[in-house]
Amino acid sequence: MRKIEVVLSPALLGLYELSGKIVVVVDILRATSTMVAAMAHGVERILPFASLDECRAYQGRAGFLCAAERDGQKAEGFDMGNSPLAFTRGDFSGLSLAMTTTNGTEAIKAATQAQEVIIGSFLNLSAVVEYLAPRTEDVIILCAGWKGRINAEDSLFAGAVVSMLHEVGFEFESDAPMIAELMYESARMDMGRFLSRSSHVRRLANLEIEDDVAFCLNVDAYSVVPVLQEGVLVRDALAMAE
Amino acid sequence: MRKIEVVLSPALLGLYELSGKIVVVVDILRATSTMVAAMAHGVERILPFASLDECRAYQGRAGFLCAAERDGQKAEGFDMGNSPLAFTRGDFSGLSLAMTTTNGTEAIKAATQAQEVIIGSFLNLSAVVEYLAPRTEDVIILCAGWKGRINAEDSLFAGAVVSMLHEVGFEFESDAPMIAELMYESARMDMGRFLSRSSHVRRLANLEIEDDVAFCLNVDAYSVVPVLQEGVLVRDALAMAE
Repeated sequence: MRKIEVVLSPALLGLYELSGKIVVVVDILRATSTMVAAMAHGVERILPFASLDECRAYQGRAGFLCAAERDGQKAEGFDMGNSPLAFTRGDFSGLSLAMTTTNGTEAIKAATQAQEVIIGSFLNLSAVVEYLAPRTEDVIILCAGWKGRINAEDSLFAGAVVSMLHEVGFEFESDAPMIAELMYESARMDMGRFLSRSSHVRRLANLEIEDDVAFCLNVDAYSVVPVLQEGVLVRDALAMAE
Repeated sequence: MRKIEVVLSPALLGLYELSGKIVVVVDILRATSTMVAAMAHGVERILPFASLDECRAYQGRAGFLCAAERDGQKAEGFDMGNSPLAFTRGDFSGLSLAMTTTNGTEAIKAATQAQEVIIGSFLNLSAVVEYLAPRTEDVIILCAGWKGRINAEDSLFAGAVVSMLHEVGFEFESDAPMIAELMYESARMDMGRFLSRSSHVRRLANLEIEDDVAFCLNVDAYSVVPVLQEGVLVRDALAMAE
């Protein structure tokens, strides 16, 4: 029996065994949505960094874009912030992206003990489920949250994955997947309205980036699944072979 | 504006400032349900202990009952385990109860930096809300969970308190209260059915204590609110004055 687990905050990750499992890292607003959009629009490789300084080392290097966000805003001196929409307005074919964000890139670093780490968002929801469905490993959805706290949008996405993997035979034994699935089943018909009450959406609205938020809820806009290989996110090999 | 916050696991408590706040500790299955039932049936004072050894020191002392549970079962050599129903079958007037459980008593210890700690359960839900409604302090619901993990029944109770305090003017700024409230609104019409899927209910069913589980969902069976004073749980003074 393949099991699915949901970790609603990286602060809870120490309670879970990662080895031999596939971890789906999710930071809907906006790191993992941005990663998916970037790859869908040509970016070849994403180098996730925890610190601004590590990321800054790539600024200005040939073939590299640098994206850095702290507290919802573009960090000073970088090419880009954390806007998925920015990647829909241009051709980024063949470029590498060095990236650091408040929560999302930290969550990727925290998951590296897993057998495999992939990137999930509503933008590639079905692609993630299709990627996981034929696998034999147990799956852990790791929500990036906000500075250790649980957030609504990542939990909602986790619930969507649980609900869909449930249908293809995955089971859960603990309560976090059950809670996330209930959330998704309750809110799925109007996710935008549900999330409009969430703390992060209100925080981003203050920064006048509502368009980004709306974009991040475009379910299945893309079919790419970023996969971590030796610390670098690349396109899933199966999708590339298609 | 009075705020309400929900901490879904004691492992997340470090992210929250407790000073000046009222913390409601909840461990529906079964520590806080047992505490409420015990006080409703005559127990005067409850001494919560984190360790079996501290609790054992009171075993056999005049005027004391000792209750100890680990992993859902009564610990060897103690008067009682963690069954609320056991307290409905007798008169415990004037007795003191020394108590240690897997999660609940640990959560009480973790909350002692708060201005005030009270005990919540479905058995005294309305009494807890009535106790908090006229207060000016912010409120934190601390879910005991299961060995650091989030559980469904404590989250559901947190959602019930959020929903009711929301109606009397409390607000929330973060997402955990929003998630808990959605859960409660979705599951409130049939909490027993919803919780029958939860990990802890299944765990307790294996121990053949379904009656305890059903009993813990009796909303408003009692009106007592246990309040922590100098490390000891006593009846709320207002209720005693009535």
